[in-house]
Amino acid sequence: MFLNDDFLLTTDTAKALFHQYAKDMPIIDYHCHLDPKEIYEDRPFANLTAAWLYGDHYKWRLMRANGVPESHITGDASDYDKFLAWARTLPKAIGNPLYSWTHLELRRFFGVDTPLNEDTAPAIWEEVNRKLAEPEFTRRGLIRSSKVKVICTTDDPVDSLEYHRLLKEEETSFSVFPTFRPDKALNIDAPGFADWLAKLAEVSGTNVDSYSALLDALRGRVDFFHENGCRLSDHALDVLRYRAGDEAECERILAKRLNGEKLSPEEITLYRTELLTALIGFYHDKGWTMQLHIHAYRNNNTPMFKKLGPDTGYDGLNDLPLTESLSQLLDRAECGSGLPKTILYSLNPGDYPSLLALMGCYQKDTVGKIQLGSGWWYNDTYSGMRQQMTLLAEGGLLGNFVGMLTDSRSFLSYTRHEYFRRVLCGLLGELADRGEAPDDAALLGKLVEDISYNNAAGYFGFESAE
Amino acid sequence: MFLNDDFLLTTDTAKALFHQYAKDMPIIDYHCHLDPKEIYEDRPFANLTAAWLYGDHYKWRLMRANGVPESHITGDASDYDKFLAWARTLPKAIGNPLYSWTHLELRRFFGVDTPLNEDTAPAIWEEVNRKLAEPEFTRRGLIRSSKVKVICTTDDPVDSLEYHRLLKEEETSFSVFPTFRPDKALNIDAPGFADWLAKLAEVSGTNVDSYSALLDALRGRVDFFHENGCRLSDHALDVLRYRAGDEAECERILAKRLNGEKLSPEEITLYRTELLTALIGFYHDKGWTMQLHIHAYRNNNTPMFKKLGPDTGYDGLNDLPLTESLSQLLDRAECGSGLPKTILYSLNPGDYPSLLALMGCYQKDTVGKIQLGSGWWYNDTYSGMRQQMTLLAEGGLLGNFVGMLTDSRSFLSYTRHEYFRRVLCGLLGELADRGEAPDDAALLGKLVEDISYNNAAGYFGFESAE
Amino acid sequence: MFLNDDFLLTTDTAKALFHQYAKDMPIIDYHCHLDPKEIYEDRPFANLTAAWLYGDHYKWRLMRANGVPESHITGDASDYDKFLAWARTLPKAIGNPLYSWTHLELRRFFGVDTPLNEDTAPAIWEEVNRKLAEPEFTRRGLIRSSKVKVICTTDDPVDSLEYHRLLKEEETSFSVFPTFRPDKALNIDAPGFADWLAKLAEVSGTNVDSYSALLDALRGRVDFFHENGCRLSDHALDVLRYRAGDEAECERILAKRLNGEKLSPEEITLYRTELLTALIGFYHDKGWTMQLHIHAYRNNNTPMFKKLGPDTGYDGLNDLPLTESLSQLLDRAECGSGLPKTILYSLNPGDYPSLLALMGCYQKDTVGKIQLGSGWWYNDTYSGMRQQMTLLAEGGLLGNFVGMLTDSRSFLSYTRHEYFRRVLCGLLGELADRGEAPDDAALLGKLVEDISYNNAAGYFGFESAE
Repeated sequence: MFLNDDFLLTTDTAKALFHQYAKDMPIIDYHCHLDPKEIYEDRPFANLTAAWLYGDHYKWRLMRANGVPESHITGDASDYDKFLAWARTLPKAIGNPLYSWTHLELRRFFGVDTPLNEDTAPAIWEEVNRKLAEPEFTRRGLIRSSKVKVICTTDDPVDSLEYHRLLKEEETSFSVFPTFRPDKALNIDAPGFADWLAKLAEVSGTNVDSYSALLDALRGRVDFFHENGCRLSDHALDVLRYRAGDEAECERILAKRLNGEKLSPEEITLYRTELLTALIGFYHDKGWTMQLHIHAYRNNNTPMFKKLGPDTGYDGLNDLPLTESLSQLLDRAECGSGLPKTILYSLNPGDYPSLLALMGCYQKDTVGKIQLGSGWWYNDTYSGMRQQMTLLAEGGLLGNFVGMLTDSRSFLSYTRHEYFRRVLCGLLGELADRGEAPDDAALLGKLVEDISYNNAAGYFGFESAE
Repeated sequence: MFLNDDFLLTTDTAKALFHQYAKDMPIIDYHCHLDPKEIYEDRPFANLTAAWLYGDHYKWRLMRANGVPESHITGDASDYDKFLAWARTLPKAIGNPLYSWTHLELRRFFGVDTPLNEDTAPAIWEEVNRKLAEPEFTRRGLIRSSKVKVICTTDDPVDSLEYHRLLKEEETSFSVFPTFRPDKALNIDAPGFADWLAKLAEVSGTNVDSYSALLDALRGRVDFFHENGCRLSDHALDVLRYRAGDEAECERILAKRLNGEKLSPEEITLYRTELLTALIGFYHDKGWTMQLHIHAYRNNNTPMFKKLGPDTGYDGLNDLPLTESLSQLLDRAECGSGLPKTILYSLNPGDYPSLLALMGCYQKDTVGKIQLGSGWWYNDTYSGMRQQMTLLAEGGLLGNFVGMLTDSRSFLSYTRHEYFRRVLCGLLGELADRGEAPDDAALLGKLVEDISYNNAAGYFGFESAE
Repeated sequence: MFLNDDFLLTTDTAKALFHQYAKDMPIIDYHCHLDPKEIYEDRPFANLTAAWLYGDHYKWRLMRANGVPESHITGDASDYDKFLAWARTLPKAIGNPLYSWTHLELRRFFGVDTPLNEDTAPAIWEEVNRKLAEPEFTRRGLIRSSKVKVICTTDDPVDSLEYHRLLKEEETSFSVFPTFRPDKALNIDAPGFADWLAKLAEVSGTNVDSYSALLDALRGRVDFFHENGCRLSDHALDVLRYRAGDEAECERILAKRLNGEKLSPEEITLYRTELLTALIGFYHDKGWTMQLHIHAYRNNNTPMFKKLGPDTGYDGLNDLPLTESLSQLLDRAECGSGLPKTILYSLNPGDYPSLLALMGCYQKDTVGKIQLGSGWWYNDTYSGMRQQMTLLAEGGLLGNFVGMLTDSRSFLSYTRHEYFRRVLCGLLGELADRGEAPDDAALLGKLVEDISYNNAAGYFGFESAE
């Protein structure tokens, strides 16, 4: 039964839905952290550790929880020894998505169906590395064999989008679009803020020495991203605070910052609120989809942050209330420009009921306009997906859900779409079996096809999506 | 299987419990928002849209989430076009309680077992409208055929209760009792507060120009409601803040308000705390049950609020902590008058663990004195009900639960009691099947009968309940 | 099926895992509230009420929820009448862990398999009381027959540990170790603080008239506890606030307190933060495991608190955010001494996602260094255990979990370890059946044995554990 054809499909309805409707749908991976340069250059992986463990802080966290020394995680141990440390960790990880993902990747990409552990590690290392050297296992080869049609990367507004353009010229089987992620414009209190403004000025060909100039420059970058196929923005709202102000205050605060003075928390919040509100207007005007990633709580381990920097496995989640601030932010937009299409993600699953109740207050005109994002990061699990889809179905319209994304830095993670579709079919099978959905394969099958692919294709409005 | 005799009954024990014990129990709908005048006048419905879609903001939210234009929701589109817009929305709503409720109502009241969608809509429209014109499908006809014995409406203290009295004289198959909901007395900061005080003065035949006069007038209305069969009060505690004070401060705050001055947040909180505490004493003295509906977060969409007003589908839920304030409020009462019987509802299911732990601290003398309210509003779902009953069973005594209510504005919603009983029997069946309850149909059947009807009949102490 | 050999084991895999791997493993009960004097003196119980109802505020809460008068709970009713009141409450408690625990204890210890209710109460009272008088039913007899190898009690730093020493000399089939619980050192605002300092001075043979003397005295008690086999500390962090300071401030605050002046909330928080940080350093140096019990909210019913005191069934849970404070506390330690092995418990299950994400940020070098504690108190239930283990598996390494503890004041509660192991085997069976774990009994069986016993034996480093 382990990861066989019917895994996660616990009813006959679920099996029929997955095999007849879900399995062969292509993939729109509308949010990930792949490097467009890496996609473009399309190199093969040196070995399985390069494909799996470089940069994958999900796996690093589990290895640390197993007492693996840092030398074998981010340090200078050999690639094989790092692989072996991961193999030794796996038997403890039963029930963790990484256990299923790891073995699913071994099966789907490399035809390896032996469970990985210390004993099986040497043979699997040989076998997979041999395959990784074959031409169809390059970055783009893996994407193509996963039937991916669209990839949206996550990009700084100052990015030249050079590799997106090169890929557009060259790659015919899938499209790679940028996503506009202006965190550095909002993080006025970050040390590198002034440097970033300088870069923005350079790519914009204009001085960015005032708030109005900043808005102009950002609007220009939105235009530029749009021309390059961008249809989504993304924001990391680790803390959600709302404080309304006006442009004059923003001018004053920005000037103060550029003058090297320290800003008060209130000033920072006001600036962030106003700039985000302005950006929301830009997104609305372009017909983009805005993504808000809420309630990460980052870099909790100071010694390791000093050693390894961010995104290395030391992030928690915040458990502050969010309804009041988020309602103010969304209502402000609705009173002004109008909200764009919006996807709300929270790292804290306790926020789902609040997000669902609130998002229903801003639905309007567009099918599925405001979306509850798929189980994000620590919630990208069997029970996390079930919780997100169950609450979405009960608190909104499951049928309009734009579905799964990988949010990944890995080229092997497309099997998570398969995993997601199995969970979806499993849930619909349960609904039918307890008598809450008609025994109508066509009706349920349409839902499955829509959530697997069609909804995303229709919702985002990419140039190339069928 | 869809909504058949055994839907939601996934074990043999569940089937036996539902069919032998739950199915035929009558209904006490101890909290709803039906209009007593409408019940009294007992008119037939013009058509299915009048019965289903007028005022049902649950359905409005789903239609908006499907991109239906407001004209077809609350606007001037024809009743048939509104019905059609709902029919088109339904196939996206699989997994939503409205999908089950809609089809359950079609089956139980109108004998229609075709799933509703765009294609089946015309025939269903004809069929149901034909039936709605028959004499047994009037407001009271629907109530009677649902075996409802008691209905508690939700009423302003200034209400004359005229229709409750007329109904008492005339209607023999069920009783309609008022519920005392003095939100307007507590909302000292609301624009209409002074006008409401004037109305209170009028019905009380006394000046209400001081806090002590307000208390006297409210006590008078409590007496009046009691004489008219009222045994419950209800409060919307959207935000729960506690600030103790004394009568002198309340006099000063009320005088300030009546003088047209603006109150500080602290003054508002103090006034609300003190008045609520006084009211709790009144309820205790009468042997009433106090209902607290906590953590709604209302009217999040300003443009639509301006257009449509409150209760139109724009309400969220609050995610503030509540333990500290609620504990102070309940403890204050316990130190003074003593707590009345109390039902705690929260719109935020994340509050359940806190509510359950806290309510156990005030249980005393009366069987099931403090109750965790049935899954409210957005939690009136399959998983919401299961969560509420599972946590209640694990954190208290499920056997003393007073059970389901509709909280509804619709005369067709009594099928939710059937839905609830099926979920209850399903849960008990699972408990028995995993070996945590004896295979003793009489023991489990008593629980089912009690939670379906007997507990409510005994707990509230209505004059007419058997 | 009721509590039979296979109860809670809903799949064949679960049955095989429990019977072949879990059932016969011994028990390490690494956190409980048994009285070492009682264990040492080893007296028989006067009757079932003495064994079950004296001091068991879990049962008291359910009896109060059933309207039982206080006379029959903590008052002067006869032991038999109290037992009868409990027997009458039970049929309402189906679905509550106490229903399963009660009957499991009757079966496993006394061979009684009749469900307890008003009718069966007299015969069960006779039967059990007869057995309780037999020599193998003394305190230690019950411990031995439960295959308990290690018990950790919970002890005040000023305790002489006399009975632990006596037991060490005398008892060969199990070990009883103390746990260092210095709540009274941290609760500088408590009325008895000065008296407690005096006791500390006495057992330390030194004046404790300054903060530095307090630290020295506490370090001395840590040494003393260590010599007596202690390997764990425990803290009740009912409220988690963080405020950094230095030793000079602590000296000043302590002096102020000893001078009878009132401390500000900020001073209390600073003192608590600094002292806890110092203690964390002591624990780290000793290689101990630190337990943090977070978010109880105690003594909510003032009249009953005045009558009965603490720990009598009037405790709630707190729902304040905790990530920010807890992250500061843990990071502070990691930047200083280094964190000791740590077990994080919260009474609020809504905290689990936050705790899991945060604890993953401090994993390092030791296998399973930071642990999410087993479902605590109100969460020690079927769904609570499943939630805790599911989230732990999905957010960390289930295979390294140190598993169950009773946290109990009762000598009959070891059957909760059986209950826990059945839930664990049930979960693993479900994982295997849905295809997320290999059908490999040895692999899953090792996980079961480790979580049942081996992990705790390896993690805590008790002198005597095999």
